[in-house]
Amino acid sequence: MSKIFRYEEVMKRVEEVINGLALKPGDKLPSVRKVSEELKVSHKTVLQAYALLEAKGLIVSRPRSGYFIDTVSTGTTMSQDNAIIPLPAVVELNTMATTMMKNARVKGVINFSMLAPANELLPVSRLNKALNTALAGMGVDNYQYPMVTGHPCLLKQIARHTLEWPNGLPVDKILITNGCMEAVNLCLDILAKPGDIIAVESPTYHGILESLEIRGLKAVEIRVDNTTGLRLDDLSVVLATYKITACIFMPSCHHPLGCSMPEENKKQLVRMLGERNIPLIEDDALGELHFEKNRSLPAKAYDGYDNVLYCSSFSKTLAPGFRIGWLSAGKYQAAAQKLKWASNISTTGILQEALGRFLESGRYPAHLNKLRLDLQENVSRYLSAVNRYFPQPVRIHMPAGGLSLWIGLPADVDTLQLQRKVLEQGIGICPGHIFAASQIYNNYVRINYGAPWSARIDKALKKAGSMISQTLQMKTIS
Amino acid sequence: MSKIFRYEEVMKRVEEVINGLALKPGDKLPSVRKVSEELKVSHKTVLQAYALLEAKGLIVSRPRSGYFIDTVSTGTTMSQDNAIIPLPAVVELNTMATTMMKNARVKGVINFSMLAPANELLPVSRLNKALNTALAGMGVDNYQYPMVTGHPCLLKQIARHTLEWPNGLPVDKILITNGCMEAVNLCLDILAKPGDIIAVESPTYHGILESLEIRGLKAVEIRVDNTTGLRLDDLSVVLATYKITACIFMPSCHHPLGCSMPEENKKQLVRMLGERNIPLIEDDALGELHFEKNRSLPAKAYDGYDNVLYCSSFSKTLAPGFRIGWLSAGKYQAAAQKLKWASNISTTGILQEALGRFLESGRYPAHLNKLRLDLQENVSRYLSAVNRYFPQPVRIHMPAGGLSLWIGLPADVDTLQLQRKVLEQGIGICPGHIFAASQIYNNYVRINYGAPWSARIDKALKKAGSMISQTLQMKTIS
Repeated sequence: MSKIFRYEEVMKRVEEVINGLALKPGDKLPSVRKVSEELKVSHKTVLQAYALLEAKGLIVSRPRSGYFIDTVSTGTTMSQDNAIIPLPAVVELNTMATTMMKNARVKGVINFSMLAPANELLPVSRLNKALNTALAGMGVDNYQYPMVTGHPCLLKQIARHTLEWPNGLPVDKILITNGCMEAVNLCLDILAKPGDIIAVESPTYHGILESLEIRGLKAVEIRVDNTTGLRLDDLSVVLATYKITACIFMPSCHHPLGCSMPEENKKQLVRMLGERNIPLIEDDALGELHFEKNRSLPAKAYDGYDNVLYCSSFSKTLAPGFRIGWLSAGKYQAAAQKLKWASNISTTGILQEALGRFLESGRYPAHLNKLRLDLQENVSRYLSAVNRYFPQPVRIHMPAGGLSLWIGLPADVDTLQLQRKVLEQGIGICPGHIFAASQIYNNYVRINYGAPWSARIDKALKKAGSMISQTLQMKTIS
Repeated sequence: MSKIFRYEEVMKRVEEVINGLALKPGDKLPSVRKVSEELKVSHKTVLQAYALLEAKGLIVSRPRSGYFIDTVSTGTTMSQDNAIIPLPAVVELNTMATTMMKNARVKGVINFSMLAPANELLPVSRLNKALNTALAGMGVDNYQYPMVTGHPCLLKQIARHTLEWPNGLPVDKILITNGCMEAVNLCLDILAKPGDIIAVESPTYHGILESLEIRGLKAVEIRVDNTTGLRLDDLSVVLATYKITACIFMPSCHHPLGCSMPEENKKQLVRMLGERNIPLIEDDALGELHFEKNRSLPAKAYDGYDNVLYCSSFSKTLAPGFRIGWLSAGKYQAAAQKLKWASNISTTGILQEALGRFLESGRYPAHLNKLRLDLQENVSRYLSAVNRYFPQPVRIHMPAGGLSLWIGLPADVDTLQLQRKVLEQGIGICPGHIFAASQIYNNYVRINYGAPWSARIDKALKKAGSMISQTLQMKTIS
């Protein structure tokens, strides 16, 4: 706590210095050195204060030029009324997420809050067939304890799938897990102890924040650009300021923003962390769902440091219900295997073999192509409906991949209250509250577009839009 | 460390007092009060010193009479040359167990080290059928994320299975897990933080010790009687001596001993811990595999305190490879659900539905009866072969249930070395080293009798026996 007050005080004094100069939008700020001398604090502290002001949208940094008063007064930052304060925060999301999932499963609910493709978009009958083959064939082996690392048939196919990477995953560097979240959790258990600081994105997947919460880890939140993903300049400031134990990022098809880091940025990220020996836990669960012609490879593909712990799964592309993911943990692979064994012995073999056989058939790339086209079709439909039905101004970006629209509503809409109201009307949405420990997205909402477009969905989005309008009207009246 | 030395010193002085009295076997020891006055230490400390001497096999306690010099000089204690010191120990098992599992899976190895019934003893074709029905029916739902608590069909059947218990498990107090080990691990994560002391049995299942190890928890080990299971008098001393965060016990079909606590002892255990508000994590994975006419109910069945966290699975009775277990965590149920979600979202639904449908068919009790008879047939064959082929003296007890024989070999056999030697001959056994943090069972070996008797098994046990004899002869020569 003391640290927070110290920084707040520094911030206040830095702001006073700047205000005293009566600068106009576009004016250059005094140099870091000058302010540090004036306030008798370290360069690092001023650098961080500037980063915080930038995060607030008050100033902007220009590479090799310095800091300037922002020329855009509103609309460009993620949130105007809540400052993004990248100070390590104890994560407290309570049971919001689980309660939400439970609610959204009530029969008849149009569920925009589950992040998965609908059954119509999954190769259900082919997977059933693969499962039957696994059962009929040498499936009897699958009744015994599976190998801790995974079913050989699936391991081989995952390795094959990464052959084109500059640094592909060899079979003996893959560990099958109960979905991507188990992979991430194994990484955290290997790397971090309570009180450690983990760098995450802002916003980020709420499951990651819950993983930090249950371990008593602190989150330092780094902004994500709508187009180019993780802001490396922010990361740089954070790395210079705090002792970061590990980073958890989604460089490809970020969730919930849907953006991907350019290849060069990924390479730089791997370098920045590799040189500092700070492990990168890469969550690539959505990486295959890009809307470009070719997938931009994950950061792991460029990992010459053996420093990236790569987590992925088939939950967003083939079968959410199978709960099959994998981990390639670089130099931590042996530790991961040991921990997996102690956690739950191994992952069920039958479903691994079914997935392995499906991949073996060579149909995965074609399925992925079709899935991407379907999702692109969905996203354009959903996007135009949101723009049509939701009260303006709505902040929304065309995602470059993934399964969700991240929608900024007017600042005085509390989306947790909204979520409760629309659920009464049989509509499930995901409030922004759970996407940052600092809860700065309380007027944001995540809408999943995994279900094919239909009149029912159109009606539900229209209803949601009119309920947001009502909320705003009531606020104006009161 | 300082604590260990303090107790060791007290021990030494207590031993000096006793030796100074020149007592003969059968003589009564001075009272706890007298020794505590003489040594100027607390009653509790003397009580513990006496418990340690008893654990060493030097003295015996007789209820309501006091302590006496043991009349039996050798053979009755678990181990002569290694004292059982129930001082909290940092658990360090290294990767022995996982390496072992890997080795034992090499093709052609006769594997006595995997604790599971062989396929011949499992209802494989009926389970396949149930799985096909689940796939063909409303199975398509199973491709989506399962409910965090579990598939309704399986939850209902598990609840039904406990209807006869005085305190059965209602559907909303059951959480499906990835096997019994995930259940135990969820409990530890809810209850304990690094450095806490957990009471476990000695010997105990090595998976439990690994779970303590990866969390930096300390184990205090409590002896298990071959016939009546956990020694409640020892537990009483430990509870009076240490701040115990939780206990992990196997009151029914203990692994590796195969013994079960009498009903009265289970009730007393629940009471002892309930009154002190020390949670009991009950591992009942093998509880159904008893050789009596009726199963002795788990401790949870008598839990009027909501203080027992009950962990079980279908791994030892139906399908080890499905990795499906469950947890009923008493007053910690909500915390368990939340943690499960953050750990891996939920357990795969398809296999849950298959198990649910199998149970629904009503065939489970008949399968269990047959399995028990098969295992009893196995155990008598294995037991007589071990007595025939292994060099005497062999310490071995007829188990009252479970899947393993726990065999004490002559004190100078190191079973880890033995394990390596017999593996070269294609035989997989499990060395006693991994069944206690204090590594006092280094001359014990666990032999699993889950595979039906055959000439091949007979030959393998004969070979193992002759290799033990060779080891002993070499020791005698050298």
